[in-house]
Amino acid sequence: MSRVVKLAVIPGDGIGPEVVAEAEKVLDAVTAGSGVVFDKTRFSLGAARFLETGDTLTDEDLAAISANDAILLGAVGGQPGDPRLKDANIERGLLLKLRFTLDHYVNLRPSKLFTGAAGPLAEPGEIDFVVVREGTEGPYVGNGGAIRKGTPHEVANETSVNTAFGVERVVRYAFDLAERRSRKLTLVHKTNVLVHAGAIWQRIVNEVAAEHPDVAVDYLHVDAATIFLVTDPSRFDVIVTDNLFGDILTDLAGAVTGGIGLAASGNINPDGAFPSMFEPVHGSAPDIAGQQKADPTAAILSVALLLDHLGLSEESARVSAAVEADIAARDGARTTAEIGSAIAARL
Amino acid sequence: MSRVVKLAVIPGDGIGPEVVAEAEKVLDAVTAGSGVVFDKTRFSLGAARFLETGDTLTDEDLAAISANDAILLGAVGGQPGDPRLKDANIERGLLLKLRFTLDHYVNLRPSKLFTGAAGPLAEPGEIDFVVVREGTEGPYVGNGGAIRKGTPHEVANETSVNTAFGVERVVRYAFDLAERRSRKLTLVHKTNVLVHAGAIWQRIVNEVAAEHPDVAVDYLHVDAATIFLVTDPSRFDVIVTDNLFGDILTDLAGAVTGGIGLAASGNINPDGAFPSMFEPVHGSAPDIAGQQKADPTAAILSVALLLDHLGLSEESARVSAAVEADIAARDGARTTAEIGSAIAARL
Ligand SMILES: CC(C)[C@H](C(=O)O)[C@@H](O)C(=O)O
Ligand SMILES: CC(C)[C@H](C(=O)O)[C@@H](O)C(=O)O
Repeated sequence: MSRVVKLAVIPGDGIGPEVVAEAEKVLDAVTAGSGVVFDKTRFSLGAARFLETGDTLTDEDLAAISANDAILLGAVGGQPGDPRLKDANIERGLLLKLRFTLDHYVNLRPSKLFTGAAGPLAEPGEIDFVVVREGTEGPYVGNGGAIRKGTPHEVANETSVNTAFGVERVVRYAFDLAERRSRKLTLVHKTNVLVHAGAIWQRIVNEVAAEHPDVAVDYLHVDAATIFLVTDPSRFDVIVTDNLFGDILTDLAGAVTGGIGLAASGNINPDGAFPSMFEPVHGSAPDIAGQQKADPTAAILSVALLLDHLGLSEESARVSAAVEADIAARDGARTTAEIGSAIAARL
Repeated sequence: MSRVVKLAVIPGDGIGPEVVAEAEKVLDAVTAGSGVVFDKTRFSLGAARFLETGDTLTDEDLAAISANDAILLGAVGGQPGDPRLKDANIERGLLLKLRFTLDHYVNLRPSKLFTGAAGPLAEPGEIDFVVVREGTEGPYVGNGGAIRKGTPHEVANETSVNTAFGVERVVRYAFDLAERRSRKLTLVHKTNVLVHAGAIWQRIVNEVAAEHPDVAVDYLHVDAATIFLVTDPSRFDVIVTDNLFGDILTDLAGAVTGGIGLAASGNINPDGAFPSMFEPVHGSAPDIAGQQKADPTAAILSVALLLDHLGLSEESARVSAAVEADIAARDGARTTAEIGSAIAARL
């Protein structure tokens, strides 16, 4: 009996289609003969689609995507400064709309320095941690507005909304993850300044910590956390933080672990009410699109996260191992397709 | 005829008094015989004062401090986790209260990699940029609150307030600074997500840019900016950004330029309506307090910023040169006082 997994594939813009092609190559290779069949539906979404049709993400798109078991996304976003995209905001209208509507409250972003990956740090030490970034609230909700817009008397407000419901579920996920890893959890926030948002995060971490006496809990202000990410990244295991701080920390973490070309992510709805979405942390990089210059590794590692989420942990581990082996053996430039094929060949 | 400058000195907590002592030593050395006399008034403020008297910053303190021409501050903040300080928030009640009340709308934070300073980057390149951080609004205003506090239905909001008045004055300062440096300015924000706050920053930068056609203007999302700070810091000259992003970027910048022990800052009221305040970016580090282990360089470089602000540019340059020479000659551990004396001896 074969298991059928319905997979929505959103290649997107720029280098998105190129890296997704390699991710699919690896997915096909690892599941060949395994009894798991991926039934794929492709969605043409992103800046290119917007320029053609004026649509960013319609209700029909959303319904069709939601009917899948999982989503693989490349990258979305057009050429920066393209005047035709001035009012589009593909990020909010497509990427964030998917994360919010599909209730991806865990934005899971592992950071690992692989043997052979050249990072910018002189003495990186061992780096292997996971950022559990809240994905559905905080400063990302779009709550706010402006009065006297465009005048010298404009006042523009942007409100971070944090709910006990929203914070608790992601904090619980982070503690459960810490239990399965090194039992060390760091809350990152700026509680001394953002007193209202900070207080609810600190309270809930304290409460959930009481149920996990075996997890060592640490707290760092976000500014101090950026220092430690470059001077002592080994100190981290599980970091839990809000949507904005998580965005910042994971790009920085990508940089210190050999580049954003290796950083994978999962936008997860742990309840299973909606399909989870897996995507590289990097963007669409229009400047190098179509040139086979992009590194598909982040997209391929996103497939490993996807497989793990689907309970296919053996297949997931095989993909990770193939990537690790490939990185360890890297020398000289290869095309996007060559990297994908090399990793697929190890499976 | 000698010029008298009234200087408020706030040594503060932890290592604050130790580093301020060395900063004063250098200030005395560089002004000896110059005709400029610093008339100092010391203020006992910080966690220690709070524990003694229950006061953080009274109206009398504020009035007395305001009567000075400038302020030199060490660091404030008690032992983290001290239960007696649980509800104190020395940061908001003292440091931010000073910055807000004295209208320090420019938080000036230069970052420079000095010859001989060991940073964490394998290939740092030349690093010499200035972050112009807004100091009186944005997410730091404390605007917000919570409903159903402490319950599973709590909602906690934190609002970033951005005014055209507040953004324009700091953006103008940054452009003027860029004109005196390499004519390159980077706005850092997260305009694609924080659409309300982002729009006012982008609009005003565009407007002021039109008056400075010779300044090359760039924009980076804050997440991308953290990547470039570790992979390509040489690309930056003047960065202008909001209060929170500036906080994060300058700690990271401190880390990549050889440590937060070298990072100086000025909280500046360019209008001269209130005294400006100069302080190291680092905190009070209670764990190493009283042990003569702290590096006073950041406090001493803050004196250089103070002198420059007072129009004593020659004295300022001499302090910077003495620090550069000292750093280039560093080897082996020295006490706080030894470093201060060595720098003072070069003057
Ligand atoms: C494109 C943008 C909206 C997005 C974010 O800020 O979350 C990206 O930076 C990321 O980290 O996935
Ligand atoms: C202590 C804290 C309030 C302060 C800030 O966030 O501004 C500090 O981090 C700084 O950068 O000067």
